[in-house]
Amino acid sequence: MKRLVYLSLILLLLAATFAACGRRRAEPTPEPVSVEAGLPTSAMEIANARGLTPEDINAALKTYVPSGKWDDYLMFTSGGHSGQLIVIGIPSMRILKNIAVFTPESWQGYGIGGSESEAILNAGNVRGRTIRYGDTHHPALSETGGDYDGQFVFINDKANARIAVVDLRDFETKQIVKDPNLISNHGSTFVTPNTEYVVQGSQYATPLGWEYAPIEEYKEKYRGLITLWKFDREKGRIDVENSFSIEVPPYWQDLCDAGKLESEGWAFCNSFNSEMATGGIEEGNPPFEAGASQRDTDYLHIFNWRKAAEVVAAGKAEVINGMQVIRMPTAVEEGILYLAPEPKSPHGADVTPDGKYIVVSGKLDPHVTVYSFAKIQQAIADQNWELDEFGIPVLDYDAVRHAQVELGLGPLHTVYDDKGFAYTSLFLDSAVAKWKLGGEDPEAYQLVEKLPVQYNIGHITAAEGDTVSPDGLYVVALNKWAVDRFAPVGPLLPQNEQLIDISGDAMKVIYDMPMGIGEPHYAQIIKADKIQAWNTYPEVGWDPVAQAPSEFATKPGEERIERNGNQVEVFMTAVRSHFTPERVMVKKGDHVIWHITNIETAHDATHGFQLGGHNVSLSLEPGETATFELDVDQDGTFTFYCTEFCSALHLEMAGYLLVEP
Amino acid sequence: MKRLVYLSLILLLLAATFAACGRRRAEPTPEPVSVEAGLPTSAMEIANARGLTPEDINAALKTYVPSGKWDDYLMFTSGGHSGQLIVIGIPSMRILKNIAVFTPESWQGYGIGGSESEAILNAGNVRGRTIRYGDTHHPALSETGGDYDGQFVFINDKANARIAVVDLRDFETKQIVKDPNLISNHGSTFVTPNTEYVVQGSQYATPLGWEYAPIEEYKEKYRGLITLWKFDREKGRIDVENSFSIEVPPYWQDLCDAGKLESEGWAFCNSFNSEMATGGIEEGNPPFEAGASQRDTDYLHIFNWRKAAEVVAAGKAEVINGMQVIRMPTAVEEGILYLAPEPKSPHGADVTPDGKYIVVSGKLDPHVTVYSFAKIQQAIADQNWELDEFGIPVLDYDAVRHAQVELGLGPLHTVYDDKGFAYTSLFLDSAVAKWKLGGEDPEAYQLVEKLPVQYNIGHITAAEGDTVSPDGLYVVALNKWAVDRFAPVGPLLPQNEQLIDISGDAMKVIYDMPMGIGEPHYAQIIKADKIQAWNTYPEVGWDPVAQAPSEFATKPGEERIERNGNQVEVFMTAVRSHFTPERVMVKKGDHVIWHITNIETAHDATHGFQLGGHNVSLSLEPGETATFELDVDQDGTFTFYCTEFCSALHLEMAGYLLVEP
Repeated sequence: MKRLVYLSLILLLLAATFAACGRRRAEPTPEPVSVEAGLPTSAMEIANARGLTPEDINAALKTYVPSGKWDDYLMFTSGGHSGQLIVIGIPSMRILKNIAVFTPESWQGYGIGGSESEAILNAGNVRGRTIRYGDTHHPALSETGGDYDGQFVFINDKANARIAVVDLRDFETKQIVKDPNLISNHGSTFVTPNTEYVVQGSQYATPLGWEYAPIEEYKEKYRGLITLWKFDREKGRIDVENSFSIEVPPYWQDLCDAGKLESEGWAFCNSFNSEMATGGIEEGNPPFEAGASQRDTDYLHIFNWRKAAEVVAAGKAEVINGMQVIRMPTAVEEGILYLAPEPKSPHGADVTPDGKYIVVSGKLDPHVTVYSFAKIQQAIADQNWELDEFGIPVLDYDAVRHAQVELGLGPLHTVYDDKGFAYTSLFLDSAVAKWKLGGEDPEAYQLVEKLPVQYNIGHITAAEGDTVSPDGLYVVALNKWAVDRFAPVGPLLPQNEQLIDISGDAMKVIYDMPMGIGEPHYAQIIKADKIQAWNTYPEVGWDPVAQAPSEFATKPGEERIERNGNQVEVFMTAVRSHFTPERVMVKKGDHVIWHITNIETAHDATHGFQLGGHNVSLSLEPGETATFELDVDQDGTFTFYCTEFCSALHLEMAGYLLVEP
Repeated sequence: MKRLVYLSLILLLLAATFAACGRRRAEPTPEPVSVEAGLPTSAMEIANARGLTPEDINAALKTYVPSGKWDDYLMFTSGGHSGQLIVIGIPSMRILKNIAVFTPESWQGYGIGGSESEAILNAGNVRGRTIRYGDTHHPALSETGGDYDGQFVFINDKANARIAVVDLRDFETKQIVKDPNLISNHGSTFVTPNTEYVVQGSQYATPLGWEYAPIEEYKEKYRGLITLWKFDREKGRIDVENSFSIEVPPYWQDLCDAGKLESEGWAFCNSFNSEMATGGIEEGNPPFEAGASQRDTDYLHIFNWRKAAEVVAAGKAEVINGMQVIRMPTAVEEGILYLAPEPKSPHGADVTPDGKYIVVSGKLDPHVTVYSFAKIQQAIADQNWELDEFGIPVLDYDAVRHAQVELGLGPLHTVYDDKGFAYTSLFLDSAVAKWKLGGEDPEAYQLVEKLPVQYNIGHITAAEGDTVSPDGLYVVALNKWAVDRFAPVGPLLPQNEQLIDISGDAMKVIYDMPMGIGEPHYAQIIKADKIQAWNTYPEVGWDPVAQAPSEFATKPGEERIERNGNQVEVFMTAVRSHFTPERVMVKKGDHVIWHITNIETAHDATHGFQLGGHNVSLSLEPGETATFELDVDQDGTFTFYCTEFCSALHLEMAGYLLVEP
């Protein structure tokens, strides 16, 4: 009888597997339509019944990805104060994965329940305080030769000045590093053209190490930093030992970009509080919004990061809280740091694909301002500068400014296509401005077109837009307000990410995507086929945190429970449709170290694990070995089970944790 | 000068507001196409270039929701082990909001940083242990007269036997209750036709209160429960005092449904381990998947909940861990509890819209089995039963079974349309079976059509499908495997929710939606216009946790910081684009109680708040007053800022927390 039951189960499992893997082949593949053939009347009837306009129909046909087909591009967008990173397919604008980064995530079993991934989050704790939230802003895909290579993506946490590393083989966070001298960053992450460094710019100035200092001592004691995190591509980790920072004035640095091609070796960050306002509206001072907006110009920060690395190697940096810091006088003396005036309160500083120009958008100025890298180098050679009050050379504005184009109200950020056009978001106009890059001729820089978007666009991103060879085709407007765009879901609205077709002469909004899981700031778009993701882990018994075989991998037949005093170690396997062992018997007061190996090798054969009454939730991808620890401080009868609907007998994939008094 | 700056700021804000609210009116509204006119060649060229088939084109036109238009339906789907509840628009299948329920969520400022919403989560802690994850399975929309009324949605946590209440005025979680006698539930949530009760069925049996008892005492000491949580619609909260449970045998109860119309007052739950297997594969026992699958039949549990309520009111229940529990002998004696055989290991028990029949799917049996409520009542009247080993009447199978239809492998769950058809998910076949309800004629129940889906469908849901008047039009297949359906994102794949058009004679899959933020189990679909959501809170100074005006509401001009010994209370306002005060000065060791009122009244004028180096993240919707508390145990200079890109001067919406040594 027992044998019969097992047999029937094996058949069920096979059936399930075939169902999962065999279906697609069985599907008919009808012929695509031909232009001549014309559209079936049924389509016209549908369009008519739903009140679709010809524009709507074109947009639908441009964005619809048929059942079972794949998107062409993947967009990695920050989740803002969700602390996560969101992967979206283009052109369908479907969310493929919400990658847990700075915030624990139960579905992915990330960062809770004494799991190994908690160690990743704990590395980002601040002065020993457990931090379990974040504010992700600017994802940066790893680059080789200035082009996305599809291997890693980096993202920052603005609120706590942290950087995370995500491995694109399994789309999981592998490392979080905390800047020991900053509490707030924003101009991050941006990578150098071969991902030698991940660049991070500070935002709200504090004393280094955010020690206490009265706000009255702002100019003397408050500072910003540009940190260059060294990335070890082989290890897939940031190498903190070989990372360093450059001290900058408390000007509230904003977005940064790394030079490329002609400007490789340099980086650029702008700033928006060169007034060094310190707020205090409650005391009759102008609020920051006014105090930081009084001067007509702020400062573009220009760095020679390659030179900086040499200076650090030469031992000329000072170690502060364990981090190598190049102080301002050294930076000036060594020719590492320069400033250039830029129209008031800029947001984006965006290097053109050829690396020859830097485009700055002053959000309180209707122009974009184009700087020439060659002219910057000339001004440096000519020592054509004055010094700011910190002794930093401020290059002559007229000498380094190459061109200006008036676009409209609230220009923020600029991206590029493959045809020599730039696209700038206009926050106050709620529009995207398309304009022509003029190369060496300042007069040739011209506004081409403005497209209304809905509403209040912040950042903008383009297909392969930050590389040396953008693809064109698509631009995505990351709009901050949705208001009436979507069916109401209460006072907290999604943002609106609009897909814009830039393949034709005129830009067209072809899709409104509600972002109801976070607040995207910036995003990068990569060709999907550049990413070589794993379908399953390389071998059964894999530790995804270490990205290496696990010493706790358990083979079928080797499952066991070992007791050593009051320490109990569980070696468990998971397979459709049971855990082995199914009964875990311990005593109140025991410390339990619990390893589970998913011995499946089939694509998508993921199992989950939750233990009732304890804070344990794991996601066990095929081949994964996960470990968690818990103190069983209460006697009782608890149940655990598989949380992924893995088979027809998934509900039976369960067991008991029995804690004797 | 200062006045000038302010003026320019006011203009900027106005511009931003107009940009947000004025744009839509300005848009041109082209005429819809007419069937006669035919489709523009441009559309044909697009379809041709993208290789779209005529079927693809129809599907695209059926699902595309034009820019700025609204979806017709909202689907509320569980997030599985994400512990959340996801709102999706139909037919576009776009995610409109991920509602934080059992797991803290940084973007919504839910459940972290000493915020008020932490109290909601703490009410769901288990025996004093902080629980910050969940496994949501079955959302239930509140009903009036058996129809969705759009006021509330309930959802369970399988892992810890908890129920949550979400208010659909603001789409936020208001309450979590923990069953004091269960550690695991599954057959929940389901509501009675006027939402008098939220029904919850247990799953893995434990001793009541999950006290320790050896597994060998399973039959004697392990039990299941059906809990009826009393819902107070006026308060919008579950009334624990007036809730009660019914003790049932340790048969591993599964899904439940409440009777309606003719069967109103009754409820039905099935079960799948009437073998009372206790696992122990490690000791040579059959694993649960085999042990719980040995008998040919399990038991449909049939309850008279209205009678049960009377019995509790009559004082015949026993109080266990503070909960009223009707013990099994009382349930039998009072005619509250009956059983009926059902084909092995069923999953769904689904009452037909007319309330006359209950459809059960035996996942290891190729049939759906239809029970007649009238025949059940007759069998009870005739006392046509035998007793199980717990003394519970088991109604005669042939007397209560009305019809059977062979559908295929692994039937799980059944939903209904408006034309007398039922739709059953077939997990192993990876198909949806459409079959005809035959009313009183058992022979008239017939399989009509089977549609392949991709892959391994678990639950299935239909537009207004669980009401007395389903809408038809759409069915959604909640598929558990995606395998090759979407661009690869590593070993952890999204699930695949497929939208199926059931408006025509033949079912058609018209959209593949990747679910990359959780694992949906069940979902319900409501007409979007039934929900009267708030655009902003009713008044400035609103406490969303209490859904009432906040005693800590702060008006402009009344912002202040009050010190009382080492307790500091901050009364702050937020408005585009500043916080008042901007400087918060405290001393190391202070306890800070911090209130922030978003004084905005404009739709979508949400502000966020994060404090660097502390675990604080808030989302402040228009009118909201939020409070958090923290102990400043470290001196230093910390920054806080608005995390929602609220205006062109959003980056300037910041301030300092200065902690003196």
